[in-house]
This record gives sequence, structure tokens and C-alpha cells, in this order.
Amino acid sequence: MSRLPEYSDITDAARQVSGEAFRTPLLENDVLNERLGGRILIKPECLQRTGSFKFRGAYNRLSRIAADDKVKGVVAFSSGNHAQGVALAAKLLGIPATIVMPSDAPLVKIDGVRRLGGIVVEYDRATGDREAVSAEIAGRTGATMVPSYDDPFIIAGQGTAGLEVAEDLRARDIPLDQFVCCAGGGGLIAGCGLAIKHHFPNCDIWAAEPEGFDDHKRSLAAGERVSNERKSGSLQDAIITPTPGALPFQLNRNQLTGGVTASDDDTLEAIAFIWKHLKLVAEPGGATAFASLLNGQIETSDKTTVVMITGGNVDPAIYRQALERV
Amino acid sequence: MSRLPEYSDITDAARQVSGEAFRTPLLENDVLNERLGGRILIKPECLQRTGSFKFRGAYNRLSRIAADDKVKGVVAFSSGNHAQGVALAAKLLGIPATIVMPSDAPLVKIDGVRRLGGIVVEYDRATGDREAVSAEIAGRTGATMVPSYDDPFIIAGQGTAGLEVAEDLRARDIPLDQFVCCAGGGGLIAGCGLAIKHHFPNCDIWAAEPEGFDDHKRSLAAGERVSNERKSGSLQDAIITPTPGALPFQLNRNQLTGGVTASDDDTLEAIAFIWKHLKLVAEPGGATAFASLLNGQIETSDKTTVVMITGGNVDPAIYRQALERV
Repeated sequence: MSRLPEYSDITDAARQVSGEAFRTPLLENDVLNERLGGRILIKPECLQRTGSFKFRGAYNRLSRIAADDKVKGVVAFSSGNHAQGVALAAKLLGIPATIVMPSDAPLVKIDGVRRLGGIVVEYDRATGDREAVSAEIAGRTGATMVPSYDDPFIIAGQGTAGLEVAEDLRARDIPLDQFVCCAGGGGLIAGCGLAIKHHFPNCDIWAAEPEGFDDHKRSLAAGERVSNERKSGSLQDAIITPTPGALPFQLNRNQLTGGVTASDDDTLEAIAFIWKHLKLVAEPGGATAFASLLNGQIETSDKTTVVMITGGNVDPAIYRQALERV
Repeated sequence: MSRLPEYSDITDAARQVSGEAFRTPLLENDVLNERLGGRILIKPECLQRTGSFKFRGAYNRLSRIAADDKVKGVVAFSSGNHAQGVALAAKLLGIPATIVMPSDAPLVKIDGVRRLGGIVVEYDRATGDREAVSAEIAGRTGATMVPSYDDPFIIAGQGTAGLEVAEDLRARDIPLDQFVCCAGGGGLIAGCGLAIKHHFPNCDIWAAEPEGFDDHKRSLAAGERVSNERKSGSLQDAIITPTPGALPFQLNRNQLTGGVTASDDDTLEAIAFIWKHLKLVAEPGGATAFASLLNGQIETSDKTTVVMITGGNVDPAIYRQALERV
């Protein structure tokens, strides 16, 4: 499949990952609703296997690899969450996995990959070229490259989170006004947007990004993909991809209403709020969308909003910093 | 209803709290399963409204108060979680609530009650008599006393958590070997035990308690209710009730297999594990059952075990202490 994914690819992915990925709940919190003056429903993908949504796409992609190619393994590059998702999917499917990770990735993520049996190859985020490193490994070993967003199976797999949201809302007869989701490469929001728009055509879809790394926001405004100037230097490490992914952007340019941003400080506040009231553990990049609600960039009064908390793999030192805000 | 609750009281309570209490999910974690060599399913009641299971029983109880008595209000005594559950149920049902709380209760719990509109009356846990303080208020105002466990509606309400567990397991065709749950007054484990035993008659039910406050363990061994010597001095403040509740113990003496314990240190380790791998926030008393798995008191190899995480209302200072274990 090299074409743009459609809604049926997401329902197909849902069948593929069923029994492997968890069906995460849709949560609600009284204090949050009161503070934002609307109804907020939370999709906590931090509760997904490996602590982020990334396992969904990875399992959907890896499970499609032909038997002959499985023995040659897979190779992926990632700041950590995709890495862990691929490592677990590979382990479950009996596929050797090599993961190219930035040397400044949170230790908890690097350890996570190793615990799952993945081989970690480090590179320098500021000077290295992770795509070149990965391509060299793939060329040498015949391993299948597993992109973190520029792939229809990955997009469709991540979209199963949005499908669950839509199904849960329909089952409870709740109409949806807006859906807020972080965007790194944009695969998750593209797949979820496809599922959400199918069920709620008039729902606004908002991309949330770190301040200074708002390539989606600016790309949507420009009508074409533009890049960030900086490549590193954000706590929200999971979503500081330099440019919107080509394939996701073909969906996102039509599906998304616009972009919003959150500073590192905003995400620490959000992590503290999520700890105190939701009893969930979020990582900075996993709390970006939530932070863009708390910092007032999205109007929530008298609306029903779904917000994704996309991951919870955070180093203790950063978490302790957030807890000082409580 | 002053008789011993039966299974039908729990299904009745489930209808009563439906749409008010959340249906919490049943979670699973790869790292936990691997570490314990069995299948562990986690019921995270820290995700319940007000951050603990207590809302279930409180709502079931308060919703049965006659209209004439509602205006006179309710009074409850609690170290905090029952307090918050009663305060929210009262707010939703339009009933004034007065809560008698120990002065050393976590600030997060006292604040929680006040935010929900409850009036807090403090007493000294070591020297005061919370029952006398509450009875005086009830006598003066005509308010309905809301016990935290010695009440059939409370027990049945808490049991809805166990009913959800049983229903989810049945829907997924998973047989259950053992169910591990903390015990303070014993209302939760009594109600849950009733629901679990109805669906899985051979399932072992284990009560988990703080070291030095193992009144259930010793009462089960003695065949009658015995008390703890100490009344205070545990991090696991939510479950250091001095004696098993009379009504719950009538169920527990027949339903429970035995008791296990966890030290404060064990619960800090458990909180850290739950933070790192499950991405959930547990309070010390909410992590006691989980800690009794990690500390090896319950055999989990090749068994399917459900463990309750009963609450997540913890002061930041204690949480930071736990994070040092990561």
C-alpha cells in the first residue's frame, strides 16, 4: 500500500492490532471540565503498551512484512516512543529490530528499547543524519525500514486510537466539536483525523506543537510543508520533528483546522495538573495538546473536546521538576 | 436495608451509579507480567471520580436518602478518600455535606473536599474520637451519618468495581485465580469479593494491609475481629482503620483466603513501579495491594491475578520520595 490511507484502512488496522494493542478508555475529570467551562474527554495513550500510541502503528506495519523478509529484521529511527513500539511489535512477531536513537533521548526510552530486545544505535541529534544511518543499516542487512509516520500502515495503525474515540462517543451518543492532538511527523493526527472526520464531519481537528517547533501550524497556514529552524532544545522531545511528514500532510492539509502551541513551561504545568487531577503520568511531548487547552489557545467553553495524552515515558528528573508546580 | 448485602444488591448498585461513577478499565502491563511470571490485570480506581473507588459507595448510599432528609444534609468521617467521595455525591445530589477529617490527612484530600463544597471539621487522630464528633453533628442537625464501610449500600456500591472486573473478564473469556485488594474497614473487598465469588467461585481473595496494621489478616486467622495496637504512623493513611468493620467482616470471614502485608517502603517502591511502567499515579494506601505482589507475598507464577489500585490522592512531597526509587 503506497497510496493515501482511507477510512477502511483504519478499520482494517483495528482488526490487525486487535488483541495486541490495548483499547484505551475515554476519561473525564470534574476539575478539568470546571476549569475549562466545557466537556473535555481524555484519550490516555500513555496507558498503551510501551507507554505511548506508537505501538499501534508499529504493530500494524510489522505484521504486514512477508515471511521471507521477517528474518532480515527491521530498522527504525526514533527519539524513543516509536522505537519502543517497534521493539515490542518486533518481539511479539519474532522479528530482529535495530533502532537508531538520538544520544539525548530520555534514558527511560533507551532502556525501554533494550529491555524489549532491540539493538540501539545512537547518533547526535544536532549533527548526525538518522535517515542516513538507518539506510546504511538497511542496505547492509536487508532489513525493512519502519518509518515513524511516512507510511500508510503506520498512519492507519495510529488512527485506531481515533477510531476508538469515535466509536466510544457514538456508543454514548456524545457529539464532538473538536479534537486536539499533538503533531510531530503528523502520522497520529492524520490517522485519527481520518477516523474522527468520518464519524464527525464538522469536528475541528487541532494540531498542538512545542513553541518554536510549530512546523504544522505554519505549514497549514502556508498551504505547503515548511520546516523548523531549530532541530533540538525542547523538553517536548517526542514531537520536535523538523518538517511535517509528506504523506500525513496530504491528509492533514485538508483535515486540520489549524495549529496551536505550548511552551515547555506550559507542558510542565500540564504534567502537574494531569498528575494531580487525572492520576496519569504524561511526558512533556505527550502533554502538549493538553497544555494547549490549559494555556487558553483553544476555546473550550460550552464545547465537547477530545484531547490526546499521547505518551508517558519521562525521565524522573523532569517529572520532579513538573511536580514542583503542584 | 440493614441485612447483609447479596450479589443482587451489587447489580442494583451498578444501575444506581451508572452514568455517575466511571467504568474504569482493566489494564495489563508487559513489564509487570514478565517480572511476576504470571498474568496480572490491574483495576485502576485511581481513575475514578475524586481519585478513588469511594465515590461508588457514597453515591449509592446518598442516592437512597429520602427527599425530606436530604435537606438536613449528611455527615461522614474519613481520612480523605471517603470524604471526597461523599462530598462529590452530595454535590451532585444537592445535599449539604459535613466531613470530619483527621488533622494529619494529606492536604490534597482536605483541599479536595473543600473544592467540592464540603465543610471540613478536623480532629486529632491519636486522641480524638471521630465517631463521637460525627454523632454530635448528626444529633444537632438531623444529618444522615454516612459510614465509610459499615453499611450495606456502601458495601454494594464499592462492589460495583468488582462487578466490572468480573464482567470484563467474562467478556474476554479470562478465568480468574486470585483477586488482591487492600482492606481498611473492609467494605471494598467485601463488596468486590461478593461480585468476584459469584462469577468465579474458586477465586482466592486476598486482603492487603500495611505492616503493623494487619487487623484483617489476624482477624481472619482468629475467626473474630481483632484490633491493631497502633492507630497512626503509616504512610498508607487511607487504610489504617483500627478494626475490621462489623458488617464487611461477616462477608469477609467467609470470602477471603487470607491477608498479606506491605511496609511503607514496599508501597513507595510500588508507587515508583506504577509511575514508571503503568503511567498511573497511586497513593501509598492505594498501592498496598500492588506492593504485596511486588514484595513476593502472593504467588503469581502461572496464575491470573487481578490487583486493585484503589486511589491516587497523594501529597507531592511523598510522591517525590517515591520517585527517588526509580
